Amino acid sequence: MFRFELKAVCSETGARAGMLHTAHGDVETPVFMPVGTQAAIKGVLARDLIQDLDAKIILSNTYHLFLRPGHEGIRKLGGLQKFMAWPRAILTDSGGFQVFSLDSLRKVTDHGVLFRSHLNGDSHMFTPESTLDVQMALGSDIMMVLDECLAYPASHEAARVSTERTVRWAREAYQYYRERHSDGLRACFPIVQGSMFASLRRHCAEELVSLDADGYAIGGLSVGEPRALSLEMTEATAPLLPPDRPRYVMGVGMPDEIPEYVARGIDMMDCVLPSRNARNGYFFTSAGRVIIKQTQFKDDPRPVEEKCECYCCRNFSRAYLRHLFLAGEMTFSTLATLHNLKHYLDLMRRMREAILEGRFPEYLRARRASAADDHSA
Amino acid sequence: MFRFELKAVCSETGARAGMLHTAHGDVETPVFMPVGTQAAIKGVLARDLIQDLDAKIILSNTYHLFLRPGHEGIRKLGGLQKFMAWPRAILTDSGGFQVFSLDSLRKVTDHGVLFRSHLNGDSHMFTPESTLDVQMALGSDIMMVLDECLAYPASHEAARVSTERTVRWAREAYQYYRERHSDGLRACFPIVQGSMFASLRRHCAEELVSLDADGYAIGGLSVGEPRALSLEMTEATAPLLPPDRPRYVMGVGMPDEIPEYVARGIDMMDCVLPSRNARNGYFFTSAGRVIIKQTQFKDDPRPVEEKCECYCCRNFSRAYLRHLFLAGEMTFSTLATLHNLKHYLDLMRRMREAILEGRFPEYLRARRASAADDHSA
Repeated sequence: MFRFELKAVCSETGARAGMLHTAHGDVETPVFMPVGTQAAIKGVLARDLIQDLDAKIILSNTYHLFLRPGHEGIRKLGGLQKFMAWPRAILTDSGGFQVFSLDSLRKVTDHGVLFRSHLNGDSHMFTPESTLDVQMALGSDIMMVLDECLAYPASHEAARVSTERTVRWAREAYQYYRERHSDGLRACFPIVQGSMFASLRRHCAEELVSLDADGYAIGGLSVGEPRALSLEMTEATAPLLPPDRPRYVMGVGMPDEIPEYVARGIDMMDCVLPSRNARNGYFFTSAGRVIIKQTQFKDDPRPVEEKCECYCCRNFSRAYLRHLFLAGEMTFSTLATLHNLKHYLDLMRRMREAILEGRFPEYLRARRASAADDHSA
Repeated sequence: MFRFELKAVCSETGARAGMLHTAHGDVETPVFMPVGTQAAIKGVLARDLIQDLDAKIILSNTYHLFLRPGHEGIRKLGGLQKFMAWPRAILTDSGGFQVFSLDSLRKVTDHGVLFRSHLNGDSHMFTPESTLDVQMALGSDIMMVLDECLAYPASHEAARVSTERTVRWAREAYQYYRERHSDGLRACFPIVQGSMFASLRRHCAEELVSLDADGYAIGGLSVGEPRALSLEMTEATAPLLPPDRPRYVMGVGMPDEIPEYVARGIDMMDCVLPSRNARNGYFFTSAGRVIIKQTQFKDDPRPVEEKCECYCCRNFSRAYLRHLFLAGEMTFSTLATLHNLKHYLDLMRRMREAILEGRFPEYLRARRASAADDHSA
């Protein structure tokens, strides 16, 4: 049965440590979910996600899998877990974010969103009901309801209309979910929208809370707005969400942002940053970013991060990694992604420990101080 | 100490089973060496080469490493093994093949070959002595002497002149090796050339045998000539080589060619085919090639090869692999390369067992029959 168990709350900040119980294993929170858009984490084998990183949950993208290879095919092959040899939990998005990123290829109606495939131009429609059907076919453990994700900036009026639509779709989706797909094994989260308007965010949150949902996502952030604004919107929203349900901020963030979300009571996050940065030659370390192509690393025998226990840092020098990067060897992406994901997952584990041990405020102060040092360096 | 131990010889065919003892471990022969051109096997981590494939030796390319990152840098970092976290044996080529592939970018003199880097146009010279220095700096276990590798076809006169040069360079290289680099830990192989002229091949082999070398390579094959001719040249050469030294045919071949070389007394081979074919979506199986993009595999729940024990076949369906390939996921290359290398290494193990158990002739007949079936299918 899907269930969220709150283990500890930091009285000073509201940061939470908990446990998501899913049909595919338990997930300690706060959790960062690696992104496997097309049923694969780019450059990393499923077994390495388990053996190297002990990741407990990943995210996959409904829009992409709907178009290719198709959710019905995946269902026939036993669902996403079997398809990609990933026996642990999977969260799928609703497809809304991708569809609303298509820009000229879509048309929003009251019933849903018409769009054209970026692959071949074919027309499709996502409705609040159909995206749940797709996610059920995929075998998702945590499904998202269809939302409208606005670009930044948006006018208050556009945001108001859009937020109302998101609320209406969430009601329709949740009714459909309760009637058809609520088997207790999986969960369904509506998504709080409202652009950068706190009042709209609050209104949306209140409406969605009345659905008594399994958990809540906060969407429409990380769309180009200043960081402070993303946090402000999170602050306006999180306290309104029921404390006994998991809270998920979609699509964040940089390593120094992650603790800020946790400090605002967020339990779940996902982002392509660690893997995309890895492929571009950027390593995240506790001492800041290492840009591996720099000449200073040409003969550097040190690992990217001395104390890191990842396969990359235990075995390879910066000189070797720089060589692989410049030579365009795909093994570079694998090694760098393993390191960056390890960096994120270690960060989450340390925060969880700090919360459980009642020392998250000190942890957060130290993180902020070192991030400030890093920025001034 | 480097040493070759002959364990069994097939009396009917001359196929050999042996053991190469190197400073970085023992290598059972006949052996296929995966190619790690730029100090990495494309798409496969060093640990997976050990854990998944139990490969005992790989090949790396002197020309590429000389240009980038540079052999001196690798030497300072502890040699190629440490650099790439590969603790087992490494064979390096002489750079000759690559330099002679550059075509307009090179000039052959009596002393060596002048060439321009394909990376930045810088001028460099390889001499029989300098390429050994480079390979020593890399920390190679088995070094190759500089040879001139002719394009196919070549006139008899061009081949004669070139073969004489290769013989002269081998004498110079071997003298230098004996004086400077022969520490007993590593080996140095001269390379038999002679284009497609059996008499030149025989002449070259006799000249090189007089060097009493650690082992012998046969080069200049797989340069576009018909298969039958490559085998004919091998037949003209192998019997002239001392039976107690390892014999290496460079740059072959397809899975159905490999047993033919073994049947002609060859102990070592290397080729980019298994990894390059993998990246292009071609899987080698005992039932022939699987071209994964084909529509017939769209919903195919079977592994690429039912009885294969590789990570790819134990976990993933053809439908999933086809999806990854069409989606351009780099994980596809990793999985396919693991499978194809496993196919080659399993092939070598089965041949070795057959030779040791005195049933190689039957093995070979069965292979040839199934290859013929495959071609007629």
